[in-house]
Amino acid sequence: MEKTIEWIKTGKNSGFSRMIDQIVIPYEYKKVDIKTSDEMYNAIKTMIVRGAPAIGIAGAHGVCLAAIENKDSNNFIEEVKKIAQYINSSRPTAVNLIWAINKQLEILDKNSDKTNEEIIELLVENAIKLEDEDIEINKKIGDFGATIIPKGATIQTHCNAGALATVGYGTALGVVRSAFKNDKTIKVFADETRPRQQGARLTTYELIRDGIDTTLITDGMGAYFMKKGMIDVVVVGADRIALNGDSANKIGTYMLAIVAKYHNVPFYIAAPKSTIDPSIKTGDEIVIELRNKEEVTIINDKPIATDKVNVINPGFDVTPNELITGIITEYGIFKPSEIYKLFE
Amino acid sequence: MEKTIEWIKTGKNSGFSRMIDQIVIPYEYKKVDIKTSDEMYNAIKTMIVRGAPAIGIAGAHGVCLAAIENKDSNNFIEEVKKIAQYINSSRPTAVNLIWAINKQLEILDKNSDKTNEEIIELLVENAIKLEDEDIEINKKIGDFGATIIPKGATIQTHCNAGALATVGYGTALGVVRSAFKNDKTIKVFADETRPRQQGARLTTYELIRDGIDTTLITDGMGAYFMKKGMIDVVVVGADRIALNGDSANKIGTYMLAIVAKYHNVPFYIAAPKSTIDPSIKTGDEIVIELRNKEEVTIINDKPIATDKVNVINPGFDVTPNELITGIITEYGIFKPSEIYKLFE
Repeated sequence: MEKTIEWIKTGKNSGFSRMIDQIVIPYEYKKVDIKTSDEMYNAIKTMIVRGAPAIGIAGAHGVCLAAIENKDSNNFIEEVKKIAQYINSSRPTAVNLIWAINKQLEILDKNSDKTNEEIIELLVENAIKLEDEDIEINKKIGDFGATIIPKGATIQTHCNAGALATVGYGTALGVVRSAFKNDKTIKVFADETRPRQQGARLTTYELIRDGIDTTLITDGMGAYFMKKGMIDVVVVGADRIALNGDSANKIGTYMLAIVAKYHNVPFYIAAPKSTIDPSIKTGDEIVIELRNKEEVTIINDKPIATDKVNVINPGFDVTPNELITGIITEYGIFKPSEIYKLFE
Repeated sequence: MEKTIEWIKTGKNSGFSRMIDQIVIPYEYKKVDIKTSDEMYNAIKTMIVRGAPAIGIAGAHGVCLAAIENKDSNNFIEEVKKIAQYINSSRPTAVNLIWAINKQLEILDKNSDKTNEEIIELLVENAIKLEDEDIEINKKIGDFGATIIPKGATIQTHCNAGALATVGYGTALGVVRSAFKNDKTIKVFADETRPRQQGARLTTYELIRDGIDTTLITDGMGAYFMKKGMIDVVVVGADRIALNGDSANKIGTYMLAIVAKYHNVPFYIAAPKSTIDPSIKTGDEIVIELRNKEEVTIINDKPIATDKVNVINPGFDVTPNELITGIITEYGIFKPSEIYKLFE
């Protein structure tokens, strides 16, 4: 399986991160090579790489780059940790970033007796292991999730929780892919997902490439189609899940969950265990990233509104557990109120 | 007050319709002169003029143009009626179009004993009367509506039910304007309103020109701000209201109404009596216009998705009466279940 993001090893203690440039899709399909930790910070911040699981891997790669950059440092571990912290500050909401960075920092701490060169090799090895595990986890999520997709169902999704949001296969779109393996008649309604239009630009792109019947709608249309009985189930990803099942995901998810409830349409979150943050009890503790004004006011390089207008641009919202039918993980499907059991 | 659309009389039995071109706002502010009934059909269809009350006036003007075109016809009344029917077919959902056309057809029928030239003068006179009445009606709607706006409130609106959607002052934005007269601290959250972005392009434009504090958000953000307690009331327009209060309005209104209910935020429709269709009992009977794919897939002349994607593009949705706190008309504010009383 082609990887959305992967470590390219060019020799002992050398290599870089290669990723699909998600800004230029659907116009262009190209890969970008990220060769420094600074470049990685910017790649995450500007969303060349996005999607909670994918930015986790980007964080792990960033630690590898930081380590390579400090190969000759006498203060190796401290320097790498400082840069890891910096990379982690690139985006606040998705917990997978700090989760994967911490996996790398554990390697650092456990191997402090080894040489810098030996540690770098261990970090790279661990990053590649995380990549491969991500795909395996997503396939499990997909297969568990496929069990709740009715035959011939139309699945609505929001944003992109697909192959492009992960190393491969996807979480919410992993569920779609596994369902499609069994039943070629399923359909997807993908909403645009303003402001950055990941639904329009990325989700339709990757699903149509896989031959899945995909309809693009705008963010305000979901309720219209639910009322007509045209949506059987909603499946979306997540960026951070609290122990009570409250789930942060791309802005607009919360509205979709409310209207799904109003129409008795089941609403599922698909996410790996690494998206659950055992340090927070409820969604109130999740930091919501506020992004720039231009994401809202400029589309395709042209303004859609006077620049005198105020804008508030939260990147995410939190869907409370009461609106979530189930959380699909690599360990099975949980009621939101029982997701904490994964940490017992 | 400057009129969004007005009849320009150039002499006896001659004149044309002058309207603000709503396609080029906010880049340009210019007026277009519509001089034939065919041009009027296209102006409505392509949304150079849009907004239920404004397209009503456009329809009335279209009948004047049809009459002028057939000034010398022996079959004058039949010819004009045929063209009126054609103009009415330009857009199906807003009832104001057929309402205003019917006002003109009544003039035709009542004066069939007069000369064509006399009838043309009566049609023009009636069209100008409808223009002036529209502004007066909107001011009454605004003043009634202002009574339900709390001091310092933040009002969310959807699409554009403003001066640009009417001859002047606006319906939902008429409420905002009247509230602002009394209280300069009110604020507006305008959502973008994809696909055609009337919220971003038109509502922010006209409110900021009036000095009203306006924040642009995307269509998926309303629930986020409601949960934070940042929205006090929602006020939107309507395109057709059934006798039971079910209200058709721009696609996305229904979602907004559901999330308002979920957060106990009052949700009002502001519309003139002419938007109520006494011939239909419920919203199920309202025809929803399906518009073209490109409105969804192309923004600022550039695609946002692969053209292989399917699109369904309903222009409107119906908000059921149970989600509507009140309907603000020029006769006062009604519970949706009591709006039928306007016709008793």
